[in-house]
Amino acid sequence: MRVSNCSVSFWQEAVDLLSDICGPAHVLTDTDILYSYGQDETLGLNFGFDILVKPGTAEEVAAIVKTCNELRIPITPRGGGSGVTGGALPIQGGVVVSLERLNKIIRIDEINGYVVAESGVITAELCEQVEQHGLYFPVQPSSKAYSFIGGNVAENAGSIHSCRYGTTAQYVLNLEVVLPTGAIIWTGANVPKNATGLNLTPLFVGSEGVLGIITKVVYRLIRRPEHEVTLLAGFETMEAACNAVLAIKQASISPAAVELIGQEALHLTAAYLNRTLPLVKEGIKAHLLIGLQEVTESALLHAMEKTGSVLEKYTTEPILAGTTALEKEQLWKLRFSIGAALSGKGKTYRDIDISIPLSLLYQYITKVEEIAASYHLAVACFGHALDGNLHTMIMLEQHMGPQAEAKAAEAVKNIYAYAIANGGVISGEHGIGMLQKEFMEVQFSEDHLALSRSIKRLLDPRDILNPGKIF
Amino acid sequence: MRVSNCSVSFWQEAVDLLSDICGPAHVLTDTDILYSYGQDETLGLNFGFDILVKPGTAEEVAAIVKTCNELRIPITPRGGGSGVTGGALPIQGGVVVSLERLNKIIRIDEINGYVVAESGVITAELCEQVEQHGLYFPVQPSSKAYSFIGGNVAENAGSIHSCRYGTTAQYVLNLEVVLPTGAIIWTGANVPKNATGLNLTPLFVGSEGVLGIITKVVYRLIRRPEHEVTLLAGFETMEAACNAVLAIKQASISPAAVELIGQEALHLTAAYLNRTLPLVKEGIKAHLLIGLQEVTESALLHAMEKTGSVLEKYTTEPILAGTTALEKEQLWKLRFSIGAALSGKGKTYRDIDISIPLSLLYQYITKVEEIAASYHLAVACFGHALDGNLHTMIMLEQHMGPQAEAKAAEAVKNIYAYAIANGGVISGEHGIGMLQKEFMEVQFSEDHLALSRSIKRLLDPRDILNPGKIF
Repeated sequence: MRVSNCSVSFWQEAVDLLSDICGPAHVLTDTDILYSYGQDETLGLNFGFDILVKPGTAEEVAAIVKTCNELRIPITPRGGGSGVTGGALPIQGGVVVSLERLNKIIRIDEINGYVVAESGVITAELCEQVEQHGLYFPVQPSSKAYSFIGGNVAENAGSIHSCRYGTTAQYVLNLEVVLPTGAIIWTGANVPKNATGLNLTPLFVGSEGVLGIITKVVYRLIRRPEHEVTLLAGFETMEAACNAVLAIKQASISPAAVELIGQEALHLTAAYLNRTLPLVKEGIKAHLLIGLQEVTESALLHAMEKTGSVLEKYTTEPILAGTTALEKEQLWKLRFSIGAALSGKGKTYRDIDISIPLSLLYQYITKVEEIAASYHLAVACFGHALDGNLHTMIMLEQHMGPQAEAKAAEAVKNIYAYAIANGGVISGEHGIGMLQKEFMEVQFSEDHLALSRSIKRLLDPRDILNPGKIF
Repeated sequence: MRVSNCSVSFWQEAVDLLSDICGPAHVLTDTDILYSYGQDETLGLNFGFDILVKPGTAEEVAAIVKTCNELRIPITPRGGGSGVTGGALPIQGGVVVSLERLNKIIRIDEINGYVVAESGVITAELCEQVEQHGLYFPVQPSSKAYSFIGGNVAENAGSIHSCRYGTTAQYVLNLEVVLPTGAIIWTGANVPKNATGLNLTPLFVGSEGVLGIITKVVYRLIRRPEHEVTLLAGFETMEAACNAVLAIKQASISPAAVELIGQEALHLTAAYLNRTLPLVKEGIKAHLLIGLQEVTESALLHAMEKTGSVLEKYTTEPILAGTTALEKEQLWKLRFSIGAALSGKGKTYRDIDISIPLSLLYQYITKVEEIAASYHLAVACFGHALDGNLHTMIMLEQHMGPQAEAKAAEAVKNIYAYAIANGGVISGEHGIGMLQKEFMEVQFSEDHLALSRSIKRLLDPRDILNPGKIF
């Protein structure tokens, strides 16, 4: 369904109705403006659509949804546009609802430890604000500088801290959601324990905008851990790095981050940054970046010693420790530049975000590289090693042409089949969006899919909301 | 719908069909046996029903569900029978499916940190088994000696440890569920991070057996904290105890348990135990039992000091510390005997399990006592103070007659109205079952209820599965 071939007067009527709801200043049809809302961070894709709407309240969102539902116009909700599986791409045209004006932090409740905020608040902004009240929101994705909290919830975002603190789902107490009917509901309550009725909140977490539009988020917050250190270890082989990760899992340490970076990602990013970086040198095939956070200094020292003594068994290189903000920034610099190094200047990548049982970490990486190599493709491997959630990006360049894309698609198919056959899932934190739909049938049983599809149909019988995603 | 008035031949046919599925030894109709399956721990209630079935596999459960669905026979799934809101009561008669034969721990995966077990495994048994592998399952409800893990999942059980470790929901990676159609699905995957498709697992967590019958559970496990201590503080007033809880929340301590026990519960339980108990004496109006668990001894000492210095501001009594198993057992003895002290010998209680914003802790307790007193009823108050999840049980005795029950019902209505108006929920961990149904409309908006009901109808259009619960 692409409705753009309807008559001009149809769209003019839609613009008028939406302008009545949001005010004409927030209903846009200018091609140049629409262009930048037709893309997120998925490959180099851009989709044309018809009307951009920027509502200012949940009630306006509800009225937009009702109107579009009556007119059978597809709606694509949009947060910060940081997705890599196409969740915010308006693939069937129609209306894009940008939540950028829902950007208010409504209440930070210090005593009860939660924050109520509109879904268009930027993640980093929320994190900073709650920290000023002595509180902490630990799930900070790499895109936090521009991702929206509503998008984080819709994708059940993870972060480098998920191995200790879990993913977004574990912090969502309550959501205000506009259903495809235009009804506005609060899914839960602002209390940490709740066994009252069906558990609706998590149904919307990770639902990628296909069941409702999130307009407010209530996050449970924790106390900020007061003592923190970053360790960097270099390894002569990827196998040694993976074995170190397994050993950390078995030791009674609970690191706040264990990020693995493979050789290809190391070298590409070092070249992109074009500066001297710690432990980037001949003979180093993988890095482990380890974040430790503890409530006391002595507990931190204990965790450092324990982690150090584990790491030493797998590398002869010195282990670097960063304690000041500057030192930590230097150690994390490479990790947080990988995304930028892999894209831009005609480069892009096919995102792979598989989660596999930790015991298969090395076996999985080897298999991915083997499959990619068989298609003459290169892979940049990095990510959340202790969660078994790695990003093994297949690198693409414009000059490689559609043939390379076709090869990448074949390689992805083989990699996914391997991961699923071995207990893995095709997405740990990036979602299905439009990019991974075809693999849902490989991942799930027919009965599972039938149930998921029937829930979508129940909530959105006209398939108005983010159509063409997940299913 | 109570189908027991159908003809004898109808029930004989049902028995025959179910015997074909499970074997005749596991299909029971003996009145004496059925009697003990007609009750759980809800008031003194007992419901007659027609056939007790004890399947041995998920496939048998599926076949039972299909058969009952065809014959329109209500099915009540049953775990350990430890519920206090009537979730396992066969209020419409028909078939009770006891999961007691699904009692195998299938796999403890030490490397990946999870356990796969059938839903009829006893909670304490699972905890002990995983601890033998150096792992830990922290959500251990007071009824762990006889509750089943499937029941814990179906009710989203909490425990004294929930203030630090969360509720059952936060540990469920994956469930095998028999849907009302008889289809068997795995809801998720055995990996800690998963953003693949709709989030079906938590829909079944806390669903109280109305959406499906849980046959296998995969729990994520953590490392057992190695250092542990219990503190007991006595307070001259309930207000001082509540203020101490608020102060603990604000301090950077993360206790593994903060249990509050009020005067009535203290005295009743002390009388029931009939022995000398620490800090049970004239002038003590409330206890706080605090569990601290840390990874190192020095962190534990730090937490003890910090907690002690908070508590000292609110009491002049010495704070007792238990470090050995025996000492801890002595400190916890009273807390874990409250349930027994409140029931038996003609006594019972109306369970109240409200979760309220922590900042209202004292205000809420005062209000409950005020409301109960206005109906000449007594309240035993205890529970998970740091979560704002208190059990304020209205005590009833047989000799008080139906008039007292009617008064209790009125009191409950007023207490719930107060809690809901102040941001609370009517159940923190015990669920809705049959006992709290009437309050769903007070708790939720019409749109919320409509969505919940439509999900129930979608999965179970004939209302076969645990009918009369939640809705």
